Amino acid sequence: MDYEALFSQAVDRLHSEKRYRVFTELARNCGSFPVADNHSGIGPAKITMWCSNDYLAMGQNPVVIEALQQAAKEFGAGAGGTRNISGNSHAIVELERELADLHGKQAALAFMSGYIANQTSLSTIAKLMPGCVILSDADNHNSMIEGIRQAGCERQIWRHNDVAHLEELLQAIPADRPKLIAFESVYSMDGDIAPIHAICDLADKYDAMTYLDEVHAVGLYGNRGGGIADRDDAMQRIHIIQGTLGKAFGVVGGYIAGSAKMIDAVRSYAPGFIFSTAMPPAIAAAAAASVRYLKRSQVERARHQERAATLRRMLLAAGLPVLVNQSHIVPVMVGDAALCKAASDMLLADHGIYIQPINYPTVPRGTERLRITPTPVHTDAMMQALTNALLDVWQRLGLRRQAA
Amino acid sequence: MDYEALFSQAVDRLHSEKRYRVFTELARNCGSFPVADNHSGIGPAKITMWCSNDYLAMGQNPVVIEALQQAAKEFGAGAGGTRNISGNSHAIVELERELADLHGKQAALAFMSGYIANQTSLSTIAKLMPGCVILSDADNHNSMIEGIRQAGCERQIWRHNDVAHLEELLQAIPADRPKLIAFESVYSMDGDIAPIHAICDLADKYDAMTYLDEVHAVGLYGNRGGGIADRDDAMQRIHIIQGTLGKAFGVVGGYIAGSAKMIDAVRSYAPGFIFSTAMPPAIAAAAAASVRYLKRSQVERARHQERAATLRRMLLAAGLPVLVNQSHIVPVMVGDAALCKAASDMLLADHGIYIQPINYPTVPRGTERLRITPTPVHTDAMMQALTNALLDVWQRLGLRRQAA
Ligand SMILES: Cc1ncc(COP(=O)(O)O)c(C=O)c1O
Ligand SMILES: Cc1ncc(COP(=O)(O)O)c(C=O)c1O
Repeated sequence: MDYEALFSQAVDRLHSEKRYRVFTELARNCGSFPVADNHSGIGPAKITMWCSNDYLAMGQNPVVIEALQQAAKEFGAGAGGTRNISGNSHAIVELERELADLHGKQAALAFMSGYIANQTSLSTIAKLMPGCVILSDADNHNSMIEGIRQAGCERQIWRHNDVAHLEELLQAIPADRPKLIAFESVYSMDGDIAPIHAICDLADKYDAMTYLDEVHAVGLYGNRGGGIADRDDAMQRIHIIQGTLGKAFGVVGGYIAGSAKMIDAVRSYAPGFIFSTAMPPAIAAAAAASVRYLKRSQVERARHQERAATLRRMLLAAGLPVLVNQSHIVPVMVGDAALCKAASDMLLADHGIYIQPINYPTVPRGTERLRITPTPVHTDAMMQALTNALLDVWQRLGLRRQAA
Repeated sequence: MDYEALFSQAVDRLHSEKRYRVFTELARNCGSFPVADNHSGIGPAKITMWCSNDYLAMGQNPVVIEALQQAAKEFGAGAGGTRNISGNSHAIVELERELADLHGKQAALAFMSGYIANQTSLSTIAKLMPGCVILSDADNHNSMIEGIRQAGCERQIWRHNDVAHLEELLQAIPADRPKLIAFESVYSMDGDIAPIHAICDLADKYDAMTYLDEVHAVGLYGNRGGGIADRDDAMQRIHIIQGTLGKAFGVVGGYIAGSAKMIDAVRSYAPGFIFSTAMPPAIAAAAAASVRYLKRSQVERARHQERAATLRRMLLAAGLPVLVNQSHIVPVMVGDAALCKAASDMLLADHGIYIQPINYPTVPRGTERLRITPTPVHTDAMMQALTNALLDVWQRLGLRRQAA
């Protein structure tokens, strides 16, 4: 059997669909983000990053770096074991307290990524509720989809952010079956936001639990950075809040927060939690420092929103096809995989601007885009350079513009 | 619906089976491991850890700590994105080169944990081979089991380390179906070792691929720390080698290594890789420093084996029921969940010795045990104290001893 040929064919399929991914190799320099060293072999030695999810540049905040360095010096590098077997460091217990407090919940549980947090929590929670139906928003992230699959329970998909459809589905499920509504707050690719209160009203009416992925909102929204549910005063209406420590908080890792009993059950039953090495104390300390910092400081959040609004305005004024939304994400639509990649390549090679093309399966075919994420450290001059570069590329590739 | 009651009941079941897990909270001090600060509220302020998987104490090796601190200073805390979207740091690319070289393979791919490495790689590889059958050792780790489930392909379980049974199963599968044999080298709970060459002989004979989890062997065995396959000169016979950066290497993270085409396919198709924030550059740099160090230095490996052999001899001489094996893991059998927990509690409270009880589902019921992991930094005096403490506990609980 020619096993290598199977792998080649799989990769060739991606080439032929023009969606083979080339990772752009770079090295961020702490303190000079969004400017980074370009190791890709294409374009200038220094590039400006426009697609990072280090939304607030917390990854280079001295408070975070110092916490990381200090904890590494004090406690060492790794955790040395799973949470149960010697890996339950004081630092991780403190991080979980910080996270529970952030969301106004009794308890929280940390994982090595937001991905595994979703996958193993959703599958475990569903398995602990015999006969459970999960109602999943059609645009939910892959980590939730895989968790729901792993749960093996009945799953119903409601049209994205469509509460009328969600109610239709809820009505048809027998009252005595456990129900879990799973959704996100900010959807990362379109940047649109879920109607949390309307969904919670339905959860109340039909006696369902709610599971909310705030991965693209924690740190960024709400008075203390608790996310959209914090901003909308809805945290207490959500049973399980899930988040990441790798985007706005600038480190790595993921978590869930909720009732002490639910957290104890997930802690005790979730295989992806039990059977994996715990988060290193240094990572936990850095993440806790970032969460603590963003509970108090408003300047990063305010500046972040202002930067996103300003850039959106500039790009729209230039006639670029921005997908308008109420969040910090600025998608510029291309609608074709090959052209999207070509635009990205030109931006890097000729303008020193790095924006990864977003193609299928991350977004549906025909909605390929450049997903732009301005941060508090992107200047007006950078925005002007970006606008000019996009206009140049749009013209050279004959891409569609829209009336300003 | 009383959702909270469902979670309570789930947790109560664990209490009633005497296998509710209490995590022991502690803080390691870099430089004084295996002695750690005890935050559990039980026993003395300082305890000696005897159950860490920081097998070589690399978690406190200055080479590793300095690499971590230096890279944090230079590159910042998090990666800021998935591998595809701005997270492909120079540091992670270098780590993967180091890992490919470690195993004599063309390429390697890093993940946030060994768990996700197994789960998403196995499911992806199987899905890329239509009609695939996975032949899984009965004692395989949960992360492999979940990956195989997620693959959704046919799965056949062969009796643990039983090559005759494996051959029986292979014989019965049509020649034209792709086959993948998945197994571990060192099994972490019993410490026994797979007959790699015999398994590879069967793989050759029946034209199967091989997938080897070396999580409890990388860094520890072989002239350069490539694991049991390195020691046994079998690396080139294994198609896919999987490992962790969180045990002998003392940091966190996981990986696979193999042919460039296979790695490219997993990189391109594995959801748990694509849709998750990349490893922080500082973690990658620390792990790479550890791997590099252990490629050259033999003293840790030699001392580790000597310490394990010495402790095993001491415990056997004292008549304690050690499960004898050829590895660095020293299991002392109890055979009952409540007694195992009681023994662990007494060791902590009265002797300042920390060994987590290992109960179901980590091991089969009736084989509950204390799993002891001596490291190069455990002294003779510590071993003597451990032996005396175990004898005391064995006597007070009326546990079984065996003829010395
Ligand atoms: C909505 C959503 N949930 C979960 C995740 C996974 O989080 P992490 O990157 O921490 O694994 C991501 C992306 O990375 C995401 O976009
Ligand atoms: C055999 C085996 N494979 C994989 C893993 C998972 O690796 P990690 O701890 O890096 O997630 C473990 C345990 O943690 C293990 O024992």
